[in-house]
Amino acid sequence: MEEDILYHFSLSTKTHNLPEMFGDTKFVCVGGSANRMRAFAQFMHHEVKLTGTPEDIRDICEGTDRYCMYKVGPVLSISHGMGVPSISIMLHELIKLLHHAQCRDVVLFRLGTSGGVGLAPGTVVITDKAVDYSFRPRFEQVVLGKVITRSTELDEGVAKELLQCSNELQNFPTVIGNTMCTHDFYEGQGRLDGALCSFSHEEKLEYLRKAYKAGVRNIEMESTVFASMCRVCGLKGVYL
Amino acid sequence: MEEDILYHFSLSTKTHNLPEMFGDTKFVCVGGSANRMRAFAQFMHHEVKLTGTPEDIRDICEGTDRYCMYKVGPVLSISHGMGVPSISIMLHELIKLLHHAQCRDVVLFRLGTSGGVGLAPGTVVITDKAVDYSFRPRFEQVVLGKVITRSTELDEGVAKELLQCSNELQNFPTVIGNTMCTHDFYEGQGRLDGALCSFSHEEKLEYLRKAYKAGVRNIEMESTVFASMCRVCGLKGVYL
Repeated sequence: MEEDILYHFSLSTKTHNLPEMFGDTKFVCVGGSANRMRAFAQFMHHEVKLTGTPEDIRDICEGTDRYCMYKVGPVLSISHGMGVPSISIMLHELIKLLHHAQCRDVVLFRLGTSGGVGLAPGTVVITDKAVDYSFRPRFEQVVLGKVITRSTELDEGVAKELLQCSNELQNFPTVIGNTMCTHDFYEGQGRLDGALCSFSHEEKLEYLRKAYKAGVRNIEMESTVFASMCRVCGLKGVYL
Repeated sequence: MEEDILYHFSLSTKTHNLPEMFGDTKFVCVGGSANRMRAFAQFMHHEVKLTGTPEDIRDICEGTDRYCMYKVGPVLSISHGMGVPSISIMLHELIKLLHHAQCRDVVLFRLGTSGGVGLAPGTVVITDKAVDYSFRPRFEQVVLGKVITRSTELDEGVAKELLQCSNELQNFPTVIGNTMCTHDFYEGQGRLDGALCSFSHEEKLEYLRKAYKAGVRNIEMESTVFASMCRVCGLKGVYL
């Protein structure tokens, strides 16, 4: 391939020196909201004690409004929008970026909001397995019209390390559990206040009880494709 | 319901007077990119000959970075991000907004980029039916863990009216055809340059030929849920 264009980052192997820009990356942190990932990058700027003002960090993807991306020392902070298709485009281009930049031993963290199941508000859930609407640890990917099933187990080692950190800090109640990934926010997650709702409050609770019994501790919209792409591409991934 | 919060618009029936803000809306235009929908709103500002400067239009959803929204006379311009889950959240909240604002006879237009199949670049495709990866005109929605199938035919009348407009203008080659909706940009659409690719150039072409034979004229990532929600909610929808 003469040139590889990362369309949705507005970067390319011809117009950008990716090894120089990204070669020292060790941690990639991704989350849905662009504003939040900017705030996170500014927070990391303080934490890693860089010189310069955190407010001056520049969006590396400023040529597009699909995603935003900030680099703070060895940390890359990227937004991914909402839902499996949106994060999947970002992951394809991120994985190619890390490859072109010759990065080694990178850990990928997803930091996002989710709805807890049977947990006190504010509890952090570290994902053990990402599961689909019927609580199966799998992701269905369509490849040229054929459905392929991929596994969605995440790195156990990093998850346990993070749980250990949280135990030491004490002020962040944290559990390891299964994360259910849905493809919509309303009907798929049992919300009664969407434009469409065909079920009762009792049916909703019954579904959530079944999910809890299957080990589900939170619900959100991107975990299955994150987990499956990390596995297939041999990346260490943690999902919060 | 005492209060209805449209979370991802950062609007609510308690904090905003929705009939006053949106009651005269007649056309809702939606597209993926926030910058593009802002540019479109500024263009409409010229077209409908409003007073004031187009550059001063304000993002109604400025309290959140999930979507952006501009109102220009009877036209609402909203971004929806990439993929079915992202647009589905927007559509749920938009349909509730139009209901609360007591809007009547609204037409919903989606204006977006797509990959043409067997067409000259620049051709406008008005969607007849939105189809899935196996060319079926249907959308699978999961409701509390059960898969429900919804139809994805769009309003024939408005599509034909638009085609007529385009014939009169002459400088926009336009066709009516089926639109295939995929859940990713790389493997699902037969791209060879994703982080993962398990098929050959010939296999890709074979799939695209099959799609063309089934009436598919373009590929993108949001049409099936747009069409099915318009139908179920009784909204006139056009997809470009």
